[in-house]
Amino acid sequence: MGKILVFGHKNPDTDTITSAIVYSYLKNQVGQDTEPVRLGEVNGETQFALEQFNVEAPRFIETAANETDQVILVDHNERQQSVIDIEEVRVLEVIDHHRISNFETSEPLYFRAEPVGCTATILLKLFKENNVDIPKNMAGLMLSAIISDSLLFKSPTCTEEDITAANELAQIADVNIEEYGLAMLKAGADLSGKSVSQLISLDAKVFEMGEHKVEIAQVNAIDPGEVLALQKEIEDVLDLVIVEKSLSLFVLAVTDILNSNSTIIVRGAHTEKVEQAYNLPLVNNQALLEGVVSRKKQIVPVLTEVFKG
Amino acid sequence: MGKILVFGHKNPDTDTITSAIVYSYLKNQVGQDTEPVRLGEVNGETQFALEQFNVEAPRFIETAANETDQVILVDHNERQQSVIDIEEVRVLEVIDHHRISNFETSEPLYFRAEPVGCTATILLKLFKENNVDIPKNMAGLMLSAIISDSLLFKSPTCTEEDITAANELAQIADVNIEEYGLAMLKAGADLSGKSVSQLISLDAKVFEMGEHKVEIAQVNAIDPGEVLALQKEIEDVLDLVIVEKSLSLFVLAVTDILNSNSTIIVRGAHTEKVEQAYNLPLVNNQALLEGVVSRKKQIVPVLTEVFKG
Ligand SMILES: [Mn+2]
Ligand SMILES: [Mn+2]
Repeated sequence: MGKILVFGHKNPDTDTITSAIVYSYLKNQVGQDTEPVRLGEVNGETQFALEQFNVEAPRFIETAANETDQVILVDHNERQQSVIDIEEVRVLEVIDHHRISNFETSEPLYFRAEPVGCTATILLKLFKENNVDIPKNMAGLMLSAIISDSLLFKSPTCTEEDITAANELAQIADVNIEEYGLAMLKAGADLSGKSVSQLISLDAKVFEMGEHKVEIAQVNAIDPGEVLALQKEIEDVLDLVIVEKSLSLFVLAVTDILNSNSTIIVRGAHTEKVEQAYNLPLVNNQALLEGVVSRKKQIVPVLTEVFKG
Repeated sequence: MGKILVFGHKNPDTDTITSAIVYSYLKNQVGQDTEPVRLGEVNGETQFALEQFNVEAPRFIETAANETDQVILVDHNERQQSVIDIEEVRVLEVIDHHRISNFETSEPLYFRAEPVGCTATILLKLFKENNVDIPKNMAGLMLSAIISDSLLFKSPTCTEEDITAANELAQIADVNIEEYGLAMLKAGADLSGKSVSQLISLDAKVFEMGEHKVEIAQVNAIDPGEVLALQKEIEDVLDLVIVEKSLSLFVLAVTDILNSNSTIIVRGAHTEKVEQAYNLPLVNNQALLEGVVSRKKQIVPVLTEVFKG
């Protein structure tokens, strides 16, 4: 039977990794036997957070059913973003802040999704609802997740609740939000030594939109020009991925985290959907989206609508 | 734009009707503008509860999009159980205790499902989390829902949490659970004056299982023989419904609420799935399922598994 495994999505980001660690801690405190695991590489930003608060990265798994029959999902619910053998295990719980799609169970479960900026904001509530004390390092990890998902409160996904939660957690963790946050984001935006394949898979998710599979990847950068200079090479890799995964569209968003906008590079048979969605032309497979920093709020819903219609 | 409409499933039961009323009350207390509505007839049991606590039945609606663009679902999430134009409105929240299936959104929402016996048990927690006082009549309605969904705590869906909640609510509502509960269940099991069509649609839900549509209806009875005596007429009506709705299977469970078992009458092209599911033969399209009183826990999951594969 094995321990209950707790994990976030593929191509893990800081919220996914820390939420697995923190929620597993909470579940164990209330008497369950769980272990946090991860479905991919720990990125530079997450590594920075883990080191800051002295917490080990979770163990990597490729499949779940070989070691357990019960899992808890954090920070995602869509099957194609989850472990590849998700159909073979029972999902006991989901804690998430994304749209709900391509998810179903044959039995009732605990499913807690809230329209907030970060899974960690929900976890803070769960600590309180369960009357469990929050250790300093767990608070630090949750704070890191909120800073990461909200780009230091600048993303339109960020809610009042996220800001309140971050302030409360910063007090427990005893860190200065601005100072620590900027250092962490910069660690994540350090792209030196990364190959083009690594760049585009740093934070990539596949979405089903109507009959179509669409991959949307995001790279946070201090200097977007650095990434855009590699456009030709990037396009070659995107084209390969499109064939491999039978995608209708690949959107790579290079996000300028200091100026809060994104330049997208778009490939695939349905690039016209992007032009419709934002009502602007792609020039050289590229467009600048002013004010767009959130895949979840500013890219996925508009593209989903266009693919529907 | 209009008020936010709050409603439960088609063929409403006591939990669905009272949860719409109670959750709408709670949302209005925290400053939102909502109205409870219903998608079908109020049954005899629910009527008894509403009269006991002096609360009006919600208004009936056939469609939602003609009067609002925002809705909250209680006690269900599957689209085919919801209002017919559910695709045309935005689901802001879901409060439920069923499996999750055939549900998706393009944007994040508040989705609170817990594996407890009744939506009302979750609502009690939400009152506490929101620091809202529970009036006597709202407590009475929530108590009625728990008694109904748990068949006075005898259903296998009933959890410790449901029992604790019921006791707490009975205190606020100032009623004797056993006495009130039995009277309410008896009011619901009073089948006199009902036509066969009414009987089979009292508490009927359609489920998608793989490629198949399966309808499962339940009738609670004090004297199941009374219903079973109508078998020939019942089968004729089931056959009509099967053609009308393109069903692969119709299971009518006549539940003996005093002895905790169900006699099923089964029609459709895939009655063999029921025989596989329970490993017993249907004789004259009928079988007695010992100990089976819960559609959600003892019928839907086993049939889903068999249809899978
Ligand atoms: Mn997240
Ligand atoms: Mn219910």
